[in-house]
Amino acid sequence: MDMLWSGWGDPAKAAPLPDTVIGLLRDLLGVTPLESGPASLDGIAVPESPLADDTWKALVDCVGDRVHVRIDGETRIRHTRGKSTPDLLRIRAGEVDDIPAAVVLPGSHDEVLAVLRACAEHGLAAVPFGGGTSVVGGLTPEAPRHGHFIALDLRRLDALIALDEVSRTATLQPGLRAPRAEALLNERGFTLGHFPQSYEWASIGGFAAARSSGQASAGYGRFDDMVLGLGVATPEGTLEIGRAPRSAAGPDLRQLILGSEGALGVITSVTVRVRPLPKTRIYEGWRFASFEAGAAALRKLAQDGPLPTVLRLSDETETFIGLAQPDRIGSTDAAPQAAGCMAIAGYEGTAEDTSDRRARAREVLLACGGEFVGEEPGERWAHGRYNAPYLRDALLDAGAFAETLETAAFWSALPGLYDAVRQALTSTLTEAGTPPLVMCHISHVYENGASLYFTVVSAQGEEPVAHWAPVKRAANDAILAAGGTISHHHGVGTDHREWFTQEIGPVGVRVLQAVKAELDPAGILNPGVLIPVR
Amino acid sequence: MDMLWSGWGDPAKAAPLPDTVIGLLRDLLGVTPLESGPASLDGIAVPESPLADDTWKALVDCVGDRVHVRIDGETRIRHTRGKSTPDLLRIRAGEVDDIPAAVVLPGSHDEVLAVLRACAEHGLAAVPFGGGTSVVGGLTPEAPRHGHFIALDLRRLDALIALDEVSRTATLQPGLRAPRAEALLNERGFTLGHFPQSYEWASIGGFAAARSSGQASAGYGRFDDMVLGLGVATPEGTLEIGRAPRSAAGPDLRQLILGSEGALGVITSVTVRVRPLPKTRIYEGWRFASFEAGAAALRKLAQDGPLPTVLRLSDETETFIGLAQPDRIGSTDAAPQAAGCMAIAGYEGTAEDTSDRRARAREVLLACGGEFVGEEPGERWAHGRYNAPYLRDALLDAGAFAETLETAAFWSALPGLYDAVRQALTSTLTEAGTPPLVMCHISHVYENGASLYFTVVSAQGEEPVAHWAPVKRAANDAILAAGGTISHHHGVGTDHREWFTQEIGPVGVRVLQAVKAELDPAGILNPGVLIPVR
Repeated sequence: MDMLWSGWGDPAKAAPLPDTVIGLLRDLLGVTPLESGPASLDGIAVPESPLADDTWKALVDCVGDRVHVRIDGETRIRHTRGKSTPDLLRIRAGEVDDIPAAVVLPGSHDEVLAVLRACAEHGLAAVPFGGGTSVVGGLTPEAPRHGHFIALDLRRLDALIALDEVSRTATLQPGLRAPRAEALLNERGFTLGHFPQSYEWASIGGFAAARSSGQASAGYGRFDDMVLGLGVATPEGTLEIGRAPRSAAGPDLRQLILGSEGALGVITSVTVRVRPLPKTRIYEGWRFASFEAGAAALRKLAQDGPLPTVLRLSDETETFIGLAQPDRIGSTDAAPQAAGCMAIAGYEGTAEDTSDRRARAREVLLACGGEFVGEEPGERWAHGRYNAPYLRDALLDAGAFAETLETAAFWSALPGLYDAVRQALTSTLTEAGTPPLVMCHISHVYENGASLYFTVVSAQGEEPVAHWAPVKRAANDAILAAGGTISHHHGVGTDHREWFTQEIGPVGVRVLQAVKAELDPAGILNPGVLIPVR
Repeated sequence: MDMLWSGWGDPAKAAPLPDTVIGLLRDLLGVTPLESGPASLDGIAVPESPLADDTWKALVDCVGDRVHVRIDGETRIRHTRGKSTPDLLRIRAGEVDDIPAAVVLPGSHDEVLAVLRACAEHGLAAVPFGGGTSVVGGLTPEAPRHGHFIALDLRRLDALIALDEVSRTATLQPGLRAPRAEALLNERGFTLGHFPQSYEWASIGGFAAARSSGQASAGYGRFDDMVLGLGVATPEGTLEIGRAPRSAAGPDLRQLILGSEGALGVITSVTVRVRPLPKTRIYEGWRFASFEAGAAALRKLAQDGPLPTVLRLSDETETFIGLAQPDRIGSTDAAPQAAGCMAIAGYEGTAEDTSDRRARAREVLLACGGEFVGEEPGERWAHGRYNAPYLRDALLDAGAFAETLETAAFWSALPGLYDAVRQALTSTLTEAGTPPLVMCHISHVYENGASLYFTVVSAQGEEPVAHWAPVKRAANDAILAAGGTISHHHGVGTDHREWFTQEIGPVGVRVLQAVKAELDPAGILNPGVLIPVR
């Protein structure tokens, strides 16, 4: 099934906001209903594919069949941009100026190599496309040397290639969507344990290319922690890396491909560590008096253990609004949960391990001032964990603006980072006449720091994309000034590139440009994404 | 104090082999006493420094004082090559053809930058020098474009720059030797937990540059796991990386500098995670009927926990010879320990944590067929853990050849790798007329694989360096053919470069060459180490 072209997920799961919420948005944020709804798919005027005949023919030769080189309008619209709120606002307005010239579906590593060579020869940029869930402009190349680009959709590369039960490793193809990968592993008694909010639609290759981090990262690790080997197709040939879990044989080239966002090569296989399917899953709620007190508890668990499998903490506003339970927003019985800051702790594993960790974590959480509020908030979180993007669609439909952004820093920098980003979002949106609701949670913890994930809701403003741009700039500036990284798990894309270059500095940028020039001398791979065009 | 110029460590700690061992070496391996002892430091004819006056003056200008540009023979001899057995054999024979033209001691990051610029200008290669403990030819540049090279000794950069007790991070200068770094952290209640065999002499910068792994890696992680930030001086400027524990902002450039062995830049600061100084340390011995049974137990702990802080397993031969307890070799009361395969499990942490992990690990080890043999073997291992390099000196003095090599692979490849490397070492040395004793242990475990560390002892042969070369080649070939990485923690240097290039393939080599060309366009940084000169 294809994802909703103009929003998120399964169109059948879309639901309008309850009237109570619409009322709240109006009273609290000044949100007014839109005068007109989004464009219809049929109504969008898609320019004819600009592919020259010989280029089209060359691409067909690479993939063996013309059905794998799609130039129809609907397929191309479905491969236009990603799923950030500005992306959605633009596609809902029928803007297709970023539309690919064609969507090419290779069926093997060698076909990917062939397509890349053909693109280099024909002056065509190529955007690797997995689940299409980028929220940082990762599918929007700037193509100064290339008038056109193709989307290189990897969905046909969707096999579990190998499972080594002794080493607990699996080799997966990049086009596997996460639920299918998980199902293939579950059949054999294993799990990847990677459950980001994009889980239902995102792909294995995308997880690797964008350094995804899942909601159970405290227990299973980030996706980049899981990756043991990579096969990569580049315009200059194949890179195969990862002969051991860890090695002292030079720089870890896996870590150069992870996070490369399609700009250095196309990931064609990913060898990951897998774990036995957990027998037990328990999620529970804890309430803290303040975000500071809750963060101290999370830090204690991250530094001295035991670490739950899932560990997250909403700030006061997010707790109050109940965004941690998106399916309950506006519900009248949310009130008892709405005081203080809600944390969710989850335990997955054997019955013995989960019970042991839970008991020991309970002592730590109590000692840190936490109040146990039962399993119900945990179960509710688990039930609604993939729903927030649907809620965003409903908010956009109702005339509100809703977007998320995230960062990470060392623990000692976290309070300052939290204040700075909230302040930047609140003051710029308020000055622009659309005072926002800003919510935040900690969703990933490490011994030495944690992530902060912000959600912003406001009225849309006259020109919502242009209205948001200076706000996003202010937030990004605040993140860097307060010592955070420009992204903990969304990635760089084109949206964060300017701040990414500040973060790694001019020498760091030159390193990446040099690698790109070596692997992609014609500059066809996702040009302008991640790495500034030299 | 300086290390013994012709061998390992503190000259006062050198001890000759007991007569019983000399007898065993003679009877078992045909080792015969050497006709002459090693060269004396005074007796080595050191060529005068070839530095031109203007070059010398330029270097003095960079570091502010002529005492920091040393051209005397003794200092230069002490910076000639590293500490592999071929390195020792050559320096003991008075061979100084690899001697640096000068030893330069910068006192700050900016002085390192200045020295690199001066080297580029004056056509002089530069070899970053920390503890000088490389065993892979990492201090032996091939300088096709540069007739001469300097050793860039970082010992003056020896401060603890910052300790963040909240985030549990410390920023260290690269020239800090490990015991001093540990002492500075211990004073503040923290530990790095990094205890490789080279601990007493190696430096923080060297650990990072060579991806060191310590004997307590199961508990504290590898050194590259600990690194959160890096400051790097390159001929093209400064690279400062690491704003958060983990990030999705592009490739992890820290992982490109880690393992770069001085070929991409000079590491001038290292931010590491630190942990509270453990209150309790317990080491104990377990005996297994076979290496296979012991390895299965280690795998069980690595995959399902609990993980001890130290976990290692000697094979039958190493257990029998007692090399796991170097100070007991040849001792008559070693016999009761000598059957089967000895494992050491160590627990460091709070009293509660160590006791809990120990109890749970005990159940696993018993279930896997282990026999608990008390704390004495563990304590003996801990007491002698840094002694093996001293033993090697004594073996060389006695006319024997002794060397180590190591690799890692995924668990399912480990048995084949073990057999292949043993076979390669045994057959080539036997064919060469010097049948060896080959011992092995697993010293680092991961969920998905482990390391293998081999020790070889044989007679020296007529020309010991030339005698060893084809044996080492055969072992390296066997490692790659059996699916291992060419190094788990020693690094690449010049000795492993040929196999490293096979391991990462031609595209991988081009990536590293492109990065080097960008950061070091004149090719002055450790030329030929790690990265083949393009």
